[in-house]
Amino acid sequence: MSASGGSVTAAVEPTVGATESAGAIDDAATRKVRVAIVGATGYVGGELIRLLLRHPHVEIVGLVGRGRQGDAVETIHPHVAGTGLAVHAEIPVDAETVFLALPHGAAAERVPDLLEGARTVIDLGPDFRLRDKADYTTWYGFEHPAPELLDRAVYGLPELHRDELQQAARDRFAGTPALVASPGCYATTSILALAPLARVGLIGDLVVDAKSGVSGAGRDAKPDLHFGEVNESVKAYAVFTHRHIGEIEQELRLAARDGASNPGASGIDFLPHLIPMTRGILAAGHVRPAWTVDQAEVERLYTEAYADEPFVTVTAQPPATKHVLGSNEIRVHARVDPRNGRILAIGVLYNLVKGAAGQAIQAFNIVHGLPEDAGLRQLPLAP
Amino acid sequence: MSASGGSVTAAVEPTVGATESAGAIDDAATRKVRVAIVGATGYVGGELIRLLLRHPHVEIVGLVGRGRQGDAVETIHPHVAGTGLAVHAEIPVDAETVFLALPHGAAAERVPDLLEGARTVIDLGPDFRLRDKADYTTWYGFEHPAPELLDRAVYGLPELHRDELQQAARDRFAGTPALVASPGCYATTSILALAPLARVGLIGDLVVDAKSGVSGAGRDAKPDLHFGEVNESVKAYAVFTHRHIGEIEQELRLAARDGASNPGASGIDFLPHLIPMTRGILAAGHVRPAWTVDQAEVERLYTEAYADEPFVTVTAQPPATKHVLGSNEIRVHARVDPRNGRILAIGVLYNLVKGAAGQAIQAFNIVHGLPEDAGLRQLPLAP
Amino acid sequence: MSASGGSVTAAVEPTVGATESAGAIDDAATRKVRVAIVGATGYVGGELIRLLLRHPHVEIVGLVGRGRQGDAVETIHPHVAGTGLAVHAEIPVDAETVFLALPHGAAAERVPDLLEGARTVIDLGPDFRLRDKADYTTWYGFEHPAPELLDRAVYGLPELHRDELQQAARDRFAGTPALVASPGCYATTSILALAPLARVGLIGDLVVDAKSGVSGAGRDAKPDLHFGEVNESVKAYAVFTHRHIGEIEQELRLAARDGASNPGASGIDFLPHLIPMTRGILAAGHVRPAWTVDQAEVERLYTEAYADEPFVTVTAQPPATKHVLGSNEIRVHARVDPRNGRILAIGVLYNLVKGAAGQAIQAFNIVHGLPEDAGLRQLPLAP
Amino acid sequence: MSASGGSVTAAVEPTVGATESAGAIDDAATRKVRVAIVGATGYVGGELIRLLLRHPHVEIVGLVGRGRQGDAVETIHPHVAGTGLAVHAEIPVDAETVFLALPHGAAAERVPDLLEGARTVIDLGPDFRLRDKADYTTWYGFEHPAPELLDRAVYGLPELHRDELQQAARDRFAGTPALVASPGCYATTSILALAPLARVGLIGDLVVDAKSGVSGAGRDAKPDLHFGEVNESVKAYAVFTHRHIGEIEQELRLAARDGASNPGASGIDFLPHLIPMTRGILAAGHVRPAWTVDQAEVERLYTEAYADEPFVTVTAQPPATKHVLGSNEIRVHARVDPRNGRILAIGVLYNLVKGAAGQAIQAFNIVHGLPEDAGLRQLPLAP
Repeated sequence: MSASGGSVTAAVEPTVGATESAGAIDDAATRKVRVAIVGATGYVGGELIRLLLRHPHVEIVGLVGRGRQGDAVETIHPHVAGTGLAVHAEIPVDAETVFLALPHGAAAERVPDLLEGARTVIDLGPDFRLRDKADYTTWYGFEHPAPELLDRAVYGLPELHRDELQQAARDRFAGTPALVASPGCYATTSILALAPLARVGLIGDLVVDAKSGVSGAGRDAKPDLHFGEVNESVKAYAVFTHRHIGEIEQELRLAARDGASNPGASGIDFLPHLIPMTRGILAAGHVRPAWTVDQAEVERLYTEAYADEPFVTVTAQPPATKHVLGSNEIRVHARVDPRNGRILAIGVLYNLVKGAAGQAIQAFNIVHGLPEDAGLRQLPLAP
Repeated sequence: MSASGGSVTAAVEPTVGATESAGAIDDAATRKVRVAIVGATGYVGGELIRLLLRHPHVEIVGLVGRGRQGDAVETIHPHVAGTGLAVHAEIPVDAETVFLALPHGAAAERVPDLLEGARTVIDLGPDFRLRDKADYTTWYGFEHPAPELLDRAVYGLPELHRDELQQAARDRFAGTPALVASPGCYATTSILALAPLARVGLIGDLVVDAKSGVSGAGRDAKPDLHFGEVNESVKAYAVFTHRHIGEIEQELRLAARDGASNPGASGIDFLPHLIPMTRGILAAGHVRPAWTVDQAEVERLYTEAYADEPFVTVTAQPPATKHVLGSNEIRVHARVDPRNGRILAIGVLYNLVKGAAGQAIQAFNIVHGLPEDAGLRQLPLAP
Repeated sequence: MSASGGSVTAAVEPTVGATESAGAIDDAATRKVRVAIVGATGYVGGELIRLLLRHPHVEIVGLVGRGRQGDAVETIHPHVAGTGLAVHAEIPVDAETVFLALPHGAAAERVPDLLEGARTVIDLGPDFRLRDKADYTTWYGFEHPAPELLDRAVYGLPELHRDELQQAARDRFAGTPALVASPGCYATTSILALAPLARVGLIGDLVVDAKSGVSGAGRDAKPDLHFGEVNESVKAYAVFTHRHIGEIEQELRLAARDGASNPGASGIDFLPHLIPMTRGILAAGHVRPAWTVDQAEVERLYTEAYADEPFVTVTAQPPATKHVLGSNEIRVHARVDPRNGRILAIGVLYNLVKGAAGQAIQAFNIVHGLPEDAGLRQLPLAP
Repeated sequence: MSASGGSVTAAVEPTVGATESAGAIDDAATRKVRVAIVGATGYVGGELIRLLLRHPHVEIVGLVGRGRQGDAVETIHPHVAGTGLAVHAEIPVDAETVFLALPHGAAAERVPDLLEGARTVIDLGPDFRLRDKADYTTWYGFEHPAPELLDRAVYGLPELHRDELQQAARDRFAGTPALVASPGCYATTSILALAPLARVGLIGDLVVDAKSGVSGAGRDAKPDLHFGEVNESVKAYAVFTHRHIGEIEQELRLAARDGASNPGASGIDFLPHLIPMTRGILAAGHVRPAWTVDQAEVERLYTEAYADEPFVTVTAQPPATKHVLGSNEIRVHARVDPRNGRILAIGVLYNLVKGAAGQAIQAFNIVHGLPEDAGLRQLPLAP
């Protein structure tokens, strides 16, 4: 990653996913896209508001939230003062693009109508992330109400699906609204930490042990999220059943190229922990490689995979979540254990930006032909 | 405060302190000011780097730091990756303006030479904040080596000294480099929380009870700042002797207008506490008013004082430090106790931005004729 | 304070409030008192369970809690494993003494019947702390249903009311069950920090600025107590209206001896803050003395007041809440500001022990003729 | 585990490791053992002081610490007030048993003399934990100066080596002082979480992913332990090289019984993380079993292994470190993933008690013929 943004130009017109300095032929670069946010009252909704208020090519035209109709946004998100924005019951008619930050199942009910109305949808929930509708039964326990849209949706991880996002941009310019399924926070961290290995089929066996701050669990006042319960404690949760397992397995499987396959990408062992912090995720991937590799080879895989990525940094030292706090950056680090040949692959990100709102905006930028880093150039906050 | 920045235009040319949207006649608006940061390895230095890297009218040409010559900035501030910046032993010759983030006493030794060399100085330390050299003996226990500069220095609190900063801008355009003494973090919080009362002479008696996160104590590894000592604990420190008392008393005294005086602005009772968080300061001013006032009158004083300020928000509810995390905003809140007539005035800010680097940049902007909010428009991070 | 407990022997029989090493004539010293805990599911209830399970002279015969009838205690308080205790709907008939940890108003409804049934009551709520029923209207907004018991109740702060607790012990042995109103957490901290000054009438004017961890706010899942809201933030709350003000004013007034009075003990300025920690309270009392005193005089007042107290330590340095974590100790520190003559008096305690369950047990011990420190000899946990 | 302590009686005389209620033939049960603590100024030293001050069968006769000779203990450990203890340069001549809490290498230099002087040694450092001197070269990079003592030392994990500790007690009564090598904090957590599987040879492959609070890293003021660096962050450290790996591999190998062996107990993958809390360790063992097992079988292994252990609780739900805060309890939890057959084994403990001082006292009790839980019956603190 370079701070000025990597080069992500496409060979064909329109130029989409261009960097800030480059031009873009979409008129979005010269006017503002009118967006609405549905699910504006939660932590992810608040982060979307914060980022989009400073996005140079966006105008927020509507906020929609549960049971808070008419409330000024600062009564819900006190950090956002002086905007004049309030929460409404309905999406405004002039919204071109809709961000959905809703619990699973809720988006699937709404998306068909939104697409029908020619709105582009950036869904931050899980309802369109999985390609196989059977996976919804397995991981979410519900029958998907719009399985015909699963093929149309693009998994909004630009590092792995930029081509599809760019195609969606072209389709959008041609009149077909885009449907982006923005990845989960654990999934993003795990997939990007492991993708360079998965591409060549190196994942012979995989344990992902992840640690998350509390904001990933949402804003609802639950007993488990009481400060007195979280502070000075760590625990594992969702043992064997975390819903992001489906995404991770799918994407690691799809990442394999040129006939490669990853025997360990099915039936992975994923264990999330809640740790006493508000922000950030660290995922440690413990890989038994499918064949013997050395450190130089692993480094080469990571460097090549991410050389041009504007938001991925490959680090020489184990990264801390603090290093990316508040930014859209993900840092990844991979090492071969000289004793036993295992590969350790670590990823860290800030769950509300690269793990949610920022990544969604990154995909939004691509499907609107905007510079991919528009509105996302904040540096991490320290300490 | 309005999110888009208040109007701070001056009546005379050159237009200084203009908002982002307004023009400014200084060429700084069209080219980049070349700045150096001395003391670049600490927390304040790191925050200056973070903010100035994204400042639209600034180019960082040099970083100077203790004993880290030649080190890449990311080895010192891991959150700042990919800049190509490194630490050097000397200020580059082409630096026009120098930010100093040094322990007390160190800036006083360097500033005369810097001004001699026609560099504008933004000093984030205390060496030029106090107007009376005797106060340095009282509060810092040192003999000021350059007392003749104390009159020339401007106390860099735009809300109280904008006129002087604008005059310094004009002087600077005329060839006299500016010397800005950027206020301390506790001082900023306390003074801005209390200034509307001080202006009219309402401070009959004053207790300021303040609470700070750890980053205000600096980055050095001291036993008292070990996580194990700070976490899950609160304590008072620097009892009766905190060095910001001098600043607070000076500025509350000077704030009085039209012949008003504040009997309680001398010999104030200031008690700081270290609380288990990294970022933020809250100061609670407990005021026994010089005469009886009611809530409406107090609200009027605050509203009038800060109506046009781009970075001050007067709140209707007691603010939390979290509400301004990472931003240059300060929130103030004032209430009259109906039982006993006392006034409570609370201020909260993020110590490294409005309490240090951000405020210094705000003053820098003014003395360079730039929009006052340039590089400072980040919204607070939540949660 | 001496670690072995001070001498608190009374001149008359029965010897009550004796230290662990001394004898006590009550048979409670040789058999176990059968106690029940009502409100066993909250944080205070949990702490009572923890302490009483290891109390050498107590047997817990019943736990009563809201809506958890039949649940094993470890499903509610996971730290308490292997006890075999469960929650019941009713107080067992063989309970001699009942601890009540209930919201305000709830105890007042139950206490008359309990006393009627010859049970001694240790109430950890506020319903019997105030002597004037009008104060309940002022601070709690409710009409006290049993005002005739307010005179009978003893304010369970042994350091100020040990004589009354000992009298209650004698009455109890004579057949009249005791009613102890155990003080609030802020109240205990504030009163003990200030009582040596109040005794001689030194409080000319008083600001108490207090900081509390989250456990003092209870265990209910409220939005304000979500980890994401509390962590990395500080805010004032209950501005001008905190219910403990009534207790503090009452006790500072009553503490005055030999005709002394404290002009500042009415209409005090009390401001509580929520800080990001689970445990502990610090109260800073900013006193404008009624007459000029020096440091030696203030130290003498504190030393004399607390020389024989088993759970009060007068410190030479400002204490941290961490120093008393998990114990029944309170530390107090007083200093005269040489600049302005004000007195700073700081108290720190662990809110769930000396601020709640431990203090209640301390009073329980006295009214049962047990060693005052029985079950309370745990040293603070560090770090 | 039962709260009252399990039965740990040995069949032969002397009865060692008896529970509190049982008798013990050593006179230690009727008089106090005179102990000294070397390395008394750190966190582990402080915890030894805290626990031993309340141990019914111990008298602390000496504290020895780096560069603090003559200092009262409360100036070093402010939570321990009123003891009259101070730090000395030398171990008092009348100390029978010496606890060593020293950096690696320091104990190995001192122990031969101590044993020569007929003192029993409880070493909390690593110098005598490993049986093979070559492992010291591998993991600690030093040549062991007293390899002949490695065989004599008992690895002080009562759950796995109680027989040897009891034999050491008999030898001690016969005149041979004992040398106990108390296990490391990560090692204790990992070994006890996995031992029931290791006994039968189930560990086919092993990843241990561990998370620790800061107190495990010691009290020295290091930049990495500054509150500003630790708070709101998580990172992996000591990648592939943590020194406890040697202990864990040794003990899992030795735990195998009846000819079983654990192919995965060599070359384990152990990754520690520093998380933003002061106290506690959680280790998650991800096991690929050597053969297929079901949940019932795994539960049976754990229940049988720990049924009589006074300080081990097998839980039905994933435990949190908070559940054992401040106590000598370890909780373990094991589950078979129905999707892939892997076993997850989690252990949590409080690093300064069961992970250090408490476990050392547990072994001390056994080798002195005292009740195994003497001085260790504190219940966990919550919240």
